[in-house]
Amino acid sequence: MTETTETAPGWLTPEELELTRARMPILYVDAVPVRVDDTGLVTHVGLLLRIGSDGTVSRALVSGRVHHHERVRDALMRHLEKDLGPVALPRVPASPQPFTIAEYFPTPGITPYHDSRQHAVSLAYVVPVAGDCRPRQDALDLVWFTPQEAASPLVQQEMSGGQDVLLKQALAHVGCLP
Amino acid sequence: MTETTETAPGWLTPEELELTRARMPILYVDAVPVRVDDTGLVTHVGLLLRIGSDGTVSRALVSGRVHHHERVRDALMRHLEKDLGPVALPRVPASPQPFTIAEYFPTPGITPYHDSRQHAVSLAYVVPVAGDCRPRQDALDLVWFTPQEAASPLVQQEMSGGQDVLLKQALAHVGCLP
Amino acid sequence: MTETTETAPGWLTPEELELTRARMPILYVDAVPVRVDDTGLVTHVGLLLRIGSDGTVSRALVSGRVHHHERVRDALMRHLEKDLGPVALPRVPASPQPFTIAEYFPTPGITPYHDSRQHAVSLAYVVPVAGDCRPRQDALDLVWFTPQEAASPLVQQEMSGGQDVLLKQALAHVGCLP
Amino acid sequence: MTETTETAPGWLTPEELELTRARMPILYVDAVPVRVDDTGLVTHVGLLLRIGSDGTVSRALVSGRVHHHERVRDALMRHLEKDLGPVALPRVPASPQPFTIAEYFPTPGITPYHDSRQHAVSLAYVVPVAGDCRPRQDALDLVWFTPQEAASPLVQQEMSGGQDVLLKQALAHVGCLP
Repeated sequence: MTETTETAPGWLTPEELELTRARMPILYVDAVPVRVDDTGLVTHVGLLLRIGSDGTVSRALVSGRVHHHERVRDALMRHLEKDLGPVALPRVPASPQPFTIAEYFPTPGITPYHDSRQHAVSLAYVVPVAGDCRPRQDALDLVWFTPQEAASPLVQQEMSGGQDVLLKQALAHVGCLP
Repeated sequence: MTETTETAPGWLTPEELELTRARMPILYVDAVPVRVDDTGLVTHVGLLLRIGSDGTVSRALVSGRVHHHERVRDALMRHLEKDLGPVALPRVPASPQPFTIAEYFPTPGITPYHDSRQHAVSLAYVVPVAGDCRPRQDALDLVWFTPQEAASPLVQQEMSGGQDVLLKQALAHVGCLP
Repeated sequence: MTETTETAPGWLTPEELELTRARMPILYVDAVPVRVDDTGLVTHVGLLLRIGSDGTVSRALVSGRVHHHERVRDALMRHLEKDLGPVALPRVPASPQPFTIAEYFPTPGITPYHDSRQHAVSLAYVVPVAGDCRPRQDALDLVWFTPQEAASPLVQQEMSGGQDVLLKQALAHVGCLP
Repeated sequence: MTETTETAPGWLTPEELELTRARMPILYVDAVPVRVDDTGLVTHVGLLLRIGSDGTVSRALVSGRVHHHERVRDALMRHLEKDLGPVALPRVPASPQPFTIAEYFPTPGITPYHDSRQHAVSLAYVVPVAGDCRPRQDALDLVWFTPQEAASPLVQQEMSGGQDVLLKQALAHVGCLP
């Protein structure tokens, strides 16, 4: 869960965010971008590609904080647009019910999810994406995988913080876990 | 749940269907067509309008049987196209998990749902519809209601077999129950 | 959503909580206590009874904050025990998937839920309770209602902040919305 | 999905069942028995052990048909009691919403699920079991596995008809997919 600096008025300063992260669970959303066929069946899963400063490849879901006074739907749209570009045409589900919640703890091992910076609780959604995806910000690319590929050890090991587990949960939810 | 005669090879004859209805629960799908805004929030619910032989108005969800060797997704698409026309552009959800199941019993009072002809168990889905709806077959019209209107006594009393309850469950699921 | 003062080390001071509430969405859980029969069907819903300083009666769900480094399951158990006593024997669901999320905004009208103190996002669960309930803290009593009674205008109007809507959503989810 | 002969009046004769299986999707329920800890977290998954006529070991979920005029809840209870014995104390979920549906086709490859005898559509539930399990009928034993063990290739390959996939979906749903 990478997060770029946000400086709009009313938001937290980096210092305040640090302080709060040590005191409160932080509300996140995780979105699993998918391509679907005419009957709604998932054919591909989109993963963001990032290259670390040490050259290591990592793959990630669309993920980020919910702001104060922001609806979860709007947070999903904001992070999808930030990561996939303005013409991705994401279709946020009609129901606010997440397919699961991912509890990222700063201490590893309490849940399958881990975030060394904070205790984040993320509402996770599968989001069909119909348009063109043009990754922005710190992502190099968005790569589409078949469910088979996405659940393979090769791809799974390139994900971190337990997002490999969350991805498999998403595949299970849409009936596409190999 | 109205059903028109289907005569394709391999399907049940009316006599066989009658016999089976007396012996087995029949698998159905119910779809609640909705309009959503850019963030996925439901703005309107579509109800089919039918005029009975005695002139009474009734309103109904899209509903029908699942055929032998037919996927639930394909049954949903078939009934949506049959009732809403070929350019409705329904977006069947990525997940096969229904928001509820409606158990229609021939005996009233066992569940909120009732069907005098049969014991039907229906998988219920909310389906966003993006295109033009042109009702066909035995429906006169498809009328769009706001969630507020759809949950009003006026509209609710025009529905039968417990579909008024199912509609409210759908509204509750998408966070739009007034 | 009433909250008693908590003073354990590592938690927020009242001042810090105030500050954070103005800057971040606060993570909550809402639990709808229910009695179920042998087949799991909900027969009764439990609502906390509170008497305001002006003598007005209000009814409420079990609700409260998730602490830093606390699992959602443990937060549910803590609030259930706090409000229902130590021998209520709540059965927190196996799945972490909430039946809905309730987004309480300080500004009324954005969602059906409202909390003048804060922007709270609550994960909502239906929790069967098998034991004896002995309300503690600021609740006078826990009263069991049939689903019919719980959804009646009489009971609904005694709930505040949109918990009447959340209760109806819970009833819809368990197939008991009248 | 093994099914023992049922001869109660009003039920289908074997010949009628054969005929219907060739013409209609048959409604099933699948139950994944689990042990949970005090907070509802799944600690173990129960699988039935069967020995085939050729000595091969197979493991299976609790599974069976829904009868005419039988509620899904009652079908779940009946199959759980049939397979786990009378003192298993299963806790059928309050919500009728299955965690997924498993579409077993007689033709392999259409979905992950396969049943050479029929097209069965199964409503799948996770069912916490609190009492003693004494397998009856054609099951030799019920063995409890940790989620880790249940998802291991060793156990997965002993399941058939796609129930290995369904089991992983259940583990994903309860947040215990390794």
